[in-house]
Amino acid sequence: MTALEAETVLIANRGEIALRIIRACRRLGLRSVCAFSEADRGARYLSLADDAICIGPAAASKSYLNIPALLAAAEATGATLVHPGYGFLSENPEFSEAVADAGLTLIGPSADVMRRMGDKVAAKNAMLKSGVPCVPGPDSVLPNDVEQIQNAADEIGYPVILKAAGGGGGRGMRIVRSSEDIADAFMMTTQEAQRFFGNPNIYLEKFLEKPRHVEIQVIADSHGNALWLGDRDCSMQRRHQKLIEEAPAPGIDRSLIAQIGERCAASCREIGYVGAGTFEFLFEDGQFYFIEMNTRIQVEHPVTEMVTGLDIVALQIDVARGARLPFEQQDVQLHGHAIECRINAEDPTTFAPSPGHIAFMHASGGPGIRVDSHLSTGSEISANYDSMIAKVIAHGANREEALDRARSALAELRIEGVKTNAPLHCQLLNDAGFSAGGVSIHHLERWLEARELGNV
Amino acid sequence: MTALEAETVLIANRGEIALRIIRACRRLGLRSVCAFSEADRGARYLSLADDAICIGPAAASKSYLNIPALLAAAEATGATLVHPGYGFLSENPEFSEAVADAGLTLIGPSADVMRRMGDKVAAKNAMLKSGVPCVPGPDSVLPNDVEQIQNAADEIGYPVILKAAGGGGGRGMRIVRSSEDIADAFMMTTQEAQRFFGNPNIYLEKFLEKPRHVEIQVIADSHGNALWLGDRDCSMQRRHQKLIEEAPAPGIDRSLIAQIGERCAASCREIGYVGAGTFEFLFEDGQFYFIEMNTRIQVEHPVTEMVTGLDIVALQIDVARGARLPFEQQDVQLHGHAIECRINAEDPTTFAPSPGHIAFMHASGGPGIRVDSHLSTGSEISANYDSMIAKVIAHGANREEALDRARSALAELRIEGVKTNAPLHCQLLNDAGFSAGGVSIHHLERWLEARELGNV
Repeated sequence: MTALEAETVLIANRGEIALRIIRACRRLGLRSVCAFSEADRGARYLSLADDAICIGPAAASKSYLNIPALLAAAEATGATLVHPGYGFLSENPEFSEAVADAGLTLIGPSADVMRRMGDKVAAKNAMLKSGVPCVPGPDSVLPNDVEQIQNAADEIGYPVILKAAGGGGGRGMRIVRSSEDIADAFMMTTQEAQRFFGNPNIYLEKFLEKPRHVEIQVIADSHGNALWLGDRDCSMQRRHQKLIEEAPAPGIDRSLIAQIGERCAASCREIGYVGAGTFEFLFEDGQFYFIEMNTRIQVEHPVTEMVTGLDIVALQIDVARGARLPFEQQDVQLHGHAIECRINAEDPTTFAPSPGHIAFMHASGGPGIRVDSHLSTGSEISANYDSMIAKVIAHGANREEALDRARSALAELRIEGVKTNAPLHCQLLNDAGFSAGGVSIHHLERWLEARELGNV
Repeated sequence: MTALEAETVLIANRGEIALRIIRACRRLGLRSVCAFSEADRGARYLSLADDAICIGPAAASKSYLNIPALLAAAEATGATLVHPGYGFLSENPEFSEAVADAGLTLIGPSADVMRRMGDKVAAKNAMLKSGVPCVPGPDSVLPNDVEQIQNAADEIGYPVILKAAGGGGGRGMRIVRSSEDIADAFMMTTQEAQRFFGNPNIYLEKFLEKPRHVEIQVIADSHGNALWLGDRDCSMQRRHQKLIEEAPAPGIDRSLIAQIGERCAASCREIGYVGAGTFEFLFEDGQFYFIEMNTRIQVEHPVTEMVTGLDIVALQIDVARGARLPFEQQDVQLHGHAIECRINAEDPTTFAPSPGHIAFMHASGGPGIRVDSHLSTGSEISANYDSMIAKVIAHGANREEALDRARSALAELRIEGVKTNAPLHCQLLNDAGFSAGGVSIHHLERWLEARELGNV
């Protein structure tokens, strides 16, 4: 297919995921056009796309979040498909709607499905209907009545957690350990929910003390086929930001994972889901508890690609274009183990962002190593956007080998001119708790506290 | 293990294979010291080793081929192990002996085994003894008697080929199509053999018209264990230099390959081989014919690493240190297909070398892609050494997917400031003959002739 005949994909994103999408487009013979802000003008990854178009100033609200500018860019470049990546507009139903209204195809689910899964209470109810287990709690938003909330909490048992129905990313949630704290917590969480998400609704759940974060990758086509592509453990988090992810989740009975995976796939069929998506769970004492669905590609998708051999972004584009999934559940086989370290341009101790000029960069390589990064020697890291600048992914025949390869790859990585969290990753990959596998979502925060006290 | 306790490996090589060895050392917790010539002083890959030491001027004869300088470098840096890579001294028995005499361990076979396998007639006899099939021909060097040679050739049947017993790399060989040409051909080949290899001995073989080049990777430890790690097809050659390699060899009955593989492993046990090695074969009409054994790591080892998941260089170091192979033949499973393209700094049409400054380099990436290169933006390519600057390796679930991924990876690769053969690879990966699989070793030369005539 020549460039003239090929359909065009507008990439409504930046950085490493933009490059990832460029790669998928090239694989599929599609033309890629990368949207960019003034801050990203001249970035070398843009030259890897077939074309690039400026969509506005550095501030994301005026460029990467600017729906009219993105639609104009699609029109100007002849794009018929729009890939939103992750973050920015990727889970914004208004964008999904606007793209559809413009006669274009969003590489992602419909606004309707996005809305339903973006509302935590609605999502939870949809999951319960499909037999996907959820954290115990009332299945609707809370009334503005402290006594009723106290009764509900008493029934579940303390500790409980209050969460903004429209929230995410760790904001708008509050743990409550006794009945007398309910009133204040409800007031504060409601205020935060209104402020951050424009939606004051709050719901209540049982709070799990030491859960793990385990998620299921799914892919679904528009012909009613939905498959799950294995699981990931993303428990290594700091302030609800994942730092290290792996596939598969270590130490969990595979038949239990398969049960949950099948239910996620069934749920996709029931809600009419089309695209790549992730069902996120807390896992404690052998039980899975659904927390939310991400209706987009995720940062950590490469670990699943490493163990399945699949190209999830290419599949995502294929199904958005109406293709049938070219394989069945039994064809999805996991080989070995993969670990991803998110490399951020930040001080590894204070976590202060460290934007600037990359004087020299050497990406790790060799057997089992993949580095996803849009940067190289001479690149600029903008202070305007997320500080994640690279993902170092290691694959091995088993978890031990993947860990060993990840350690070597981290030691090999060179990024000069800015600070990065690579030294932190080197320490974490050698941490006895993480090395043993199966740490809780609090492990990293506690490790950081111990480091603070000089105990690491 | 700390750096002080770790054994040190002197890397007696340069470029991408030096970096490859650095990676294996890091994986194994060994200290790596990179030998370098004046021409390579300041090269960034050197900073990825734990240390680096200058061994002489740019001319390889005074540095990378300089045995006393390398031994002095080993002594100065406390190295107890020496990795010769490929090329340079990697198959030089005198080096192997000198390393052993200095009380060091060569990561490679003994001088004795190297000598035996380096002499083509001796190697062929050793193979025949192990039941490895060889090209029909007398099993000793030719007498200086034209009539006897004519009789031998008549018996095998024309065309035949005369080859220097100490030769390799395509020099010192001559095809003869009739009895009357024997006398001249013998004289010229003997002269060349003396000039190039310091050994006038010549042997005679049946000449295969359209063979493929298929080889078996082996690994053997010092405890009598030898395994074969699958096969590779390296038929895409220009002037006997491999350009594209793949694993496994397409379209050959796997049980036939397994038979040959088992015999190669058996042969290793019989000759007391220790290390990584390759048995090279011509393959025509369903028959394998041994041509030579390479007693070193090969350029194309990554395709085998991609399909087996193994780290062959790390295994090579392990067995040299006396370790037992940590798995058995049944554990060696091939997954999918891998293709490697050798990227040379050369004009893609004239093949004239193109050394110089790399103004910008972007290595391809994404699912299934591995790029082995010691270069990046700002690197210098020296005119003193081989022009191979990178290897782009693609892995897929099957040959078609590996090919597709290789095509995309080649299209993504950016090397600015010097000419490379990447455009040639892009054409070759789309060539119908190569895409179909199973081309002969003459395919590329014929393709190039057709291109010359404007027929591609």
